Amino acid sequence: MPSYIAPTKDMAFVLNEVLDVYKTDIPGYNELEADFTGAVLEEAGRITGQVLAPLNMVGDTEGCTLENGVVRVPTGFQDAFDQVRKGGWTGLDCDPEYGGQGMPCVMATAVAEMFSSSNQAFAMYQSLTHGAYSAIRTHGTKEQKSRYLPNLVSCAWTGTMNLTEPHCGTDLGLMRTMAVPQEDGSYKISGQKIFISAGEHDMADNIIHLVLAKIPGGPEGIKGVSLFIVPKLLVDDGDSPGVRNSVSCGRIEKKMGIHGNPACAMNYDGATGALLGEEHKGMRAMFTMMNEARLGVGMQGLAQAEVAYQNAVIYARDRLQGRDVTGARNPDGPADPLIVHPDIRRNLMDQKSFIEGARAFVYWGAVMIDRARRNEDAEAEGLISLLTPIIKGFLTDVGYDMTVQAQQVYGGHGYIEEWGMSQFTRDARVTMIYEGANGVQALDLVGRKLAADGGKHVMAFFDLVQTFIAENKDNEAMKAFTGPLREASNTLQDADIYLRQNGMKNPNHRLAGATDFMHLFGHVCLGLMWAHMAKVALKALDGNADDPAFYKNKVATARYYMARRLPACRMHLARIRSGADPVMALGTDSF
Amino acid sequence: MPSYIAPTKDMAFVLNEVLDVYKTDIPGYNELEADFTGAVLEEAGRITGQVLAPLNMVGDTEGCTLENGVVRVPTGFQDAFDQVRKGGWTGLDCDPEYGGQGMPCVMATAVAEMFSSSNQAFAMYQSLTHGAYSAIRTHGTKEQKSRYLPNLVSCAWTGTMNLTEPHCGTDLGLMRTMAVPQEDGSYKISGQKIFISAGEHDMADNIIHLVLAKIPGGPEGIKGVSLFIVPKLLVDDGDSPGVRNSVSCGRIEKKMGIHGNPACAMNYDGATGALLGEEHKGMRAMFTMMNEARLGVGMQGLAQAEVAYQNAVIYARDRLQGRDVTGARNPDGPADPLIVHPDIRRNLMDQKSFIEGARAFVYWGAVMIDRARRNEDAEAEGLISLLTPIIKGFLTDVGYDMTVQAQQVYGGHGYIEEWGMSQFTRDARVTMIYEGANGVQALDLVGRKLAADGGKHVMAFFDLVQTFIAENKDNEAMKAFTGPLREASNTLQDADIYLRQNGMKNPNHRLAGATDFMHLFGHVCLGLMWAHMAKVALKALDGNADDPAFYKNKVATARYYMARRLPACRMHLARIRSGADPVMALGTDSF
Repeated sequence: MPSYIAPTKDMAFVLNEVLDVYKTDIPGYNELEADFTGAVLEEAGRITGQVLAPLNMVGDTEGCTLENGVVRVPTGFQDAFDQVRKGGWTGLDCDPEYGGQGMPCVMATAVAEMFSSSNQAFAMYQSLTHGAYSAIRTHGTKEQKSRYLPNLVSCAWTGTMNLTEPHCGTDLGLMRTMAVPQEDGSYKISGQKIFISAGEHDMADNIIHLVLAKIPGGPEGIKGVSLFIVPKLLVDDGDSPGVRNSVSCGRIEKKMGIHGNPACAMNYDGATGALLGEEHKGMRAMFTMMNEARLGVGMQGLAQAEVAYQNAVIYARDRLQGRDVTGARNPDGPADPLIVHPDIRRNLMDQKSFIEGARAFVYWGAVMIDRARRNEDAEAEGLISLLTPIIKGFLTDVGYDMTVQAQQVYGGHGYIEEWGMSQFTRDARVTMIYEGANGVQALDLVGRKLAADGGKHVMAFFDLVQTFIAENKDNEAMKAFTGPLREASNTLQDADIYLRQNGMKNPNHRLAGATDFMHLFGHVCLGLMWAHMAKVALKALDGNADDPAFYKNKVATARYYMARRLPACRMHLARIRSGADPVMALGTDSF
Repeated sequence: MPSYIAPTKDMAFVLNEVLDVYKTDIPGYNELEADFTGAVLEEAGRITGQVLAPLNMVGDTEGCTLENGVVRVPTGFQDAFDQVRKGGWTGLDCDPEYGGQGMPCVMATAVAEMFSSSNQAFAMYQSLTHGAYSAIRTHGTKEQKSRYLPNLVSCAWTGTMNLTEPHCGTDLGLMRTMAVPQEDGSYKISGQKIFISAGEHDMADNIIHLVLAKIPGGPEGIKGVSLFIVPKLLVDDGDSPGVRNSVSCGRIEKKMGIHGNPACAMNYDGATGALLGEEHKGMRAMFTMMNEARLGVGMQGLAQAEVAYQNAVIYARDRLQGRDVTGARNPDGPADPLIVHPDIRRNLMDQKSFIEGARAFVYWGAVMIDRARRNEDAEAEGLISLLTPIIKGFLTDVGYDMTVQAQQVYGGHGYIEEWGMSQFTRDARVTMIYEGANGVQALDLVGRKLAADGGKHVMAFFDLVQTFIAENKDNEAMKAFTGPLREASNTLQDADIYLRQNGMKNPNHRLAGATDFMHLFGHVCLGLMWAHMAKVALKALDGNADDPAFYKNKVATARYYMARRLPACRMHLARIRSGADPVMALGTDSF
């Protein structure tokens, strides 16, 4: 069975040395001393490694079962959920007014990475609840907040997000679920929602569904969508769950992965709901949570890659096959371990250099979210809005590829479920799809985010890269990193210019390059992260660091990213510059 | 449920117009008139589309079950296998002396593509039997041939290949299974083999296991391995199956995919076997079938991509989401179909340009196998030996990526098993692993094949490309294809030079670039195929072809491959040229 050991040292490196969180001028960050964050990471590492990871394969094998409207979760999940609740892990970054611990998003993100690595299906019960918490906290009335938030923060109740219907996912304007206003100010909700993760289960006293629906007579399409709170059990004035609402789970899907979390088809048959936020402003309410939710999924991409990588390394060290061509490394054994072989090493370095770069990128994104919120910093808000589709789309596309590469290290055993590598791949696959399929992320990037506020956020990004390069221009040791970063960044600027100039003439020139642009941008972001990490590591080595091997490995891994991963940038530029014509040449009936 | 319609028109295009098989000077090819091959393809298309494809999901859902040593196959498989046997599909390219139809490998490959697309798990029963047939036909005694081949050709009996053991797959020198010689000339085989596809099942009267084992006292390692015929039921002098041999299936694995075919752990407990070929020459016997077997797996990569693509197209036409930004295409409907969107179109064009290029590549490879065999042409043998790891490794790596892309078109539905797209991905995953994991293919290419016979085969390949370019140098319309092909080929030559020069100093420089070199080479091969297909299509358009749209689409798809896929070549070169240092910089304990 695979294992998971939280990479707390790498996490602490990013928090303390790369992002320097303790010294950052964001309210609340002055609590993030290394001793404190280290203790949180260690304790989270313990519960995820010892309690959640051993249940990961159980969840996959048993799955969830629906019987008489009740969904049963896999063996051990209830007990683990109790431990998680009791440990206070559910409200790390929630408002202390409602029982949360008030930590910044960046700490919650680091902890969430561990939860996701150790057991993605399990972690989703909690992360979806956090989504419902955020929506109600941001858009709810005072009464709604006091009624729902304490139990959502503690996960005594869990939450769900109900967007998709059988005929519409991306294009929610096609939605058919209706919300009919009642005389008492409530609404009767009717319709079917599908793919509702944790839509029904037996681990919580109540489930609070957030449901998008249309009020009759409202505007057409997406502008007529409102958001509703629809509890499974109606919450009476005493705020304890009471009568069963007219909402039920009609089916759970057989999925490729994340079997431990049920994807429910939810039937709303005149269920009682309360408007959350304003009428017809449901999409806007969803959008306010989007950066955080999508950053969370991008984090899952790196989290599955991390756990798959850890187990690939174990196998590569353990499995004896063939000999090092430069001389036997295990001469007394029948063969050398896989890890001596350059092609295995390339495979592992791809994974390692992606994961550590992605971690820095995601945590940096979380700092921007904190800065946007806690400092009401519009520039940080603009920059993280620009980078969000890249975090979500690029990190899950590449994260998935990395789980596939990790699986490949196992040879035939990688294909056998008993070894667990297949599950990582199957679980990771959903991250490319949910919370906006990656093609939609790419369109969001080139169709909306690039041009937002007159394009100033992408300019701010380029400034940031150029400033970094300029600051290090006299540092000889850094040239190995700033050089490739400059080239990659120039390539991205060329792509940006192409999209702007040609997208004016024909929007399809922009859209045809969307996915390549997202990947090109992602590589530049990870290049920037690695250049930054190399600088920190070189400085530590200059200063007689305690653990020089750790920093030398960071420098070597940065070098790998520059040499082996950044060359993808020019490929993406060439594809983008070929424009829409090759893509759109065939008629729709010629496929 | 997904469907499959054999792409007979595309297949016929490759056979008749690209490869011009009927006019080729290989014995037997003079029978391959378009009418004849067309009839075979149509009939194979019928049985695969109507009989095998509907059983694909049944096989996945039910899987195989082991009870009291008996493996039961999924519902409908037995009846379908009977139809396949009755239709004569099992011996297409087998020797007529043993009941086969004596067709060339290229025809069998085209038909096998359909079998694999429609139901990979089912097709494997037959393809493994074909492997056993080939081994016995090439290395068996006259008596062995007459005893086993007729029933293997008809698939009355099926065959297996037993190589892997729990502790060794790639490195078969570590093998522990022993074969002890008996006084009567037979051997007693003892040991455990794992991952034996179709190792036990109830669809055939007998199962003929080909087993690699060591004879005590033989040479160490791989040089002491011999090949044995070990029937499930001992075949008496009357050649009908009799007493049960001491071989049994101890376990079937839970796999990520190909559930309709059991991966058996086979226990040999002093089972009676007969030496096939010479003592200690077992690996050589396996190698003589390797090109064909690996070409067959490369074909599976394209076959799964093809069926996934077909279903992605259906969904992209059917599913309404969003609007074409250049103007509504379905103004009376609530939204436009997915296929209007450039990013979906890019996704589908990636698939289409890969599949059709890969098909030409694989069929061309099959022609080389035929030429090597039927004309005893050493140059063809050398060239296909060089290209085999590319066909296997590149086509299954990219084929898998394409099934993932096809699945992505379905959004959330792609993750739900009911829609069938997950199965294509899960089934395709094994093709990167079995018959030599793709990393091993890459090592075979750079470590063995490039240098074989003084490197003359890779030179022959470059000559072939240059000759094609030279022949078309005055053809204006071809410049759009020969230009990118020349650049890609030059890039490959640069990579080859790098590997030769630096691999001399340090073999790790060669090995660290192995996978990138395999992919770079694969792109050049598909570029060559597309340039060739473009030429044929342009010529047909000049000559007032019957169906100009068909040829225009070929030209447009060729253009897509040049514009959007060949830019990967320079990325691979850059990675290769970074050499072993970034890859090997970390100590084995630093991962």
